[in-house]
Amino acid sequence: MKTNIKFPYILLIAFLLITSSSYSQQNTKAKADPLPSWNAGNVKKSIIDFVTKTTKKGSADFVPVADRIACFDNDGTLWTEMPLPFQLFFVIDRIKAMAPQHPEWKNTQPYKGILEGDMKAALAGGEKALGEMIMTTHAGMTTDEFDNTVKEWMATATHPKTGKHYNEMVYQPMLELLYYLRANGYKTFIVSGGGIDFIRVWAEQAYGIPPYQVVGSSVKVKYDTTGTQPVFIKLAELNFFDDKLGKPVGIHEHIGKRPVFTAGNSDGDYGMMQYTSTGNGPRFGLYIHHTDAVREYAYDRESSLARLSKGLDDAAKYHWVVVDMKTDWKKIYPFDK
Amino acid sequence: MKTNIKFPYILLIAFLLITSSSYSQQNTKAKADPLPSWNAGNVKKSIIDFVTKTTKKGSADFVPVADRIACFDNDGTLWTEMPLPFQLFFVIDRIKAMAPQHPEWKNTQPYKGILEGDMKAALAGGEKALGEMIMTTHAGMTTDEFDNTVKEWMATATHPKTGKHYNEMVYQPMLELLYYLRANGYKTFIVSGGGIDFIRVWAEQAYGIPPYQVVGSSVKVKYDTTGTQPVFIKLAELNFFDDKLGKPVGIHEHIGKRPVFTAGNSDGDYGMMQYTSTGNGPRFGLYIHHTDAVREYAYDRESSLARLSKGLDDAAKYHWVVVDMKTDWKKIYPFDK
Repeated sequence: MKTNIKFPYILLIAFLLITSSSYSQQNTKAKADPLPSWNAGNVKKSIIDFVTKTTKKGSADFVPVADRIACFDNDGTLWTEMPLPFQLFFVIDRIKAMAPQHPEWKNTQPYKGILEGDMKAALAGGEKALGEMIMTTHAGMTTDEFDNTVKEWMATATHPKTGKHYNEMVYQPMLELLYYLRANGYKTFIVSGGGIDFIRVWAEQAYGIPPYQVVGSSVKVKYDTTGTQPVFIKLAELNFFDDKLGKPVGIHEHIGKRPVFTAGNSDGDYGMMQYTSTGNGPRFGLYIHHTDAVREYAYDRESSLARLSKGLDDAAKYHWVVVDMKTDWKKIYPFDK
Repeated sequence: MKTNIKFPYILLIAFLLITSSSYSQQNTKAKADPLPSWNAGNVKKSIIDFVTKTTKKGSADFVPVADRIACFDNDGTLWTEMPLPFQLFFVIDRIKAMAPQHPEWKNTQPYKGILEGDMKAALAGGEKALGEMIMTTHAGMTTDEFDNTVKEWMATATHPKTGKHYNEMVYQPMLELLYYLRANGYKTFIVSGGGIDFIRVWAEQAYGIPPYQVVGSSVKVKYDTTGTQPVFIKLAELNFFDDKLGKPVGIHEHIGKRPVFTAGNSDGDYGMMQYTSTGNGPRFGLYIHHTDAVREYAYDRESSLARLSKGLDDAAKYHWVVVDMKTDWKKIYPFDK
């Protein structure tokens, strides 16, 4: 029996050799092509032309380093958001984990629906029910306790379709775009409808974006000094909702400069895309259109959760560049072959 | 007559030669001494020892670059705050400038007091009166209009004692400290009870601190698209008060990491100093004690506006380093001889 579960060290070594060699190959390639996972075409060309003209000294469209602000939506723009935005899987998993301490949930919606796998029943209460589930799982603990819960969940939970951890389901082309912008003096920010405390836990590792460059939704926190160490307690009270018209407001409050570059994928990003594109001087708006039902998901106008409709209608008006995921992206995830 | 007012170009050239030579001398010196305007002593030694040990690879107290967060109060820590915090001079000047459009102010407090130079009468209404004056001068306009007003005021208004523009009254030793920390991989943030929109207008030029590294008090803003261009309208509603226990909360919301280094000068900074100093690993708290009535101002426990009392009492407990402005600072302002 023992030999069967012995760890195959030789395979591990082979794996490390292969991945380190493919990593150095990728680095060599990157010098010639900053966006190797983007297929040649108008979208890739527009991005490279824009970055070139805004960073070349003497260019009529030169943007000083201090003004090179790039804002990215997260769900559906930097990582997948289907079949549900990933933070909702966290909510569901937390409710299941907390249920033993709450026997009353067996007979109370929306918890009953979650515990019985009946999402329709759980969400019958609409925004109020959703809000209650978010507060139950995102408030009433210290920020350190919350951070640890997110870390543990991210290390263990897996996506129902790919079986991968959620933070592995980031888009390889967008990672390259983030890196390319930063290599050219742009500061990259996340501006998400998702929870700021949730995203900050893993964004630095996943995207190279530090906590102070994450803008998101939040509950109020209280600085509490009654224990042996000061802590922040997350309160069941909304502080800021960073979606739709909240996004430009979040950018103003948190960043204080109008972005030069923005990327989004839904009408929830329309406000920040519009705010970006109506500024003077060169501006770039990138809309990710989910068109790849095989490698990822295909949805836009019809989808109830993450509709892209007004954004497609007004793309030409604002000179937004629309990514056709199926044709523009050579690979979707870092783990794709 | 004409010859009398002819501009003395020869003096201008001489001035430029002298200042550029003293600038290059300062640069040469700075290589040997990163804090030339700090007198030798325990405070200067503590700062240099701390920066050295937290940035030296292999040091037991090494702090990774990603965690090198330094937070600075503004009023009384980076620039003077007497005889009034400078933003209140802005409030007073704005009320005077707006008065012709508000004839009713002649008979209504707190405006009547401001217009007649009777501050006691203006402030008799306490916090409510102060809050009303702040909203009158900080809300009801677009953020662009507000920014322009602050810029114009900063370029024209002068301090009652020194006759200098307010943004000239920044502390030379603190400018050197900001620069020294940044040169050693620290990110420098302002965490001020003052208005975030007010500070952002001039902080990048004065301190080298970009808008997205300013945390401060704010009113709510509304993203408005009813005109030809989207604008933010500043509403007469408090969004966040970044003072006292609000400071650690502002740090959590805006930065999302516990600072390693903090500097303050009043009990309003106690919370953020405490939050910093109760973290694990090396932490540095710097309290500026205003002890120089000749070159600046002297005040602490007795002052009603910017009291430093609890901070002095607990300095030893938290290992805070207290700057004695009179003996520790070789010069106060950049314009000092």
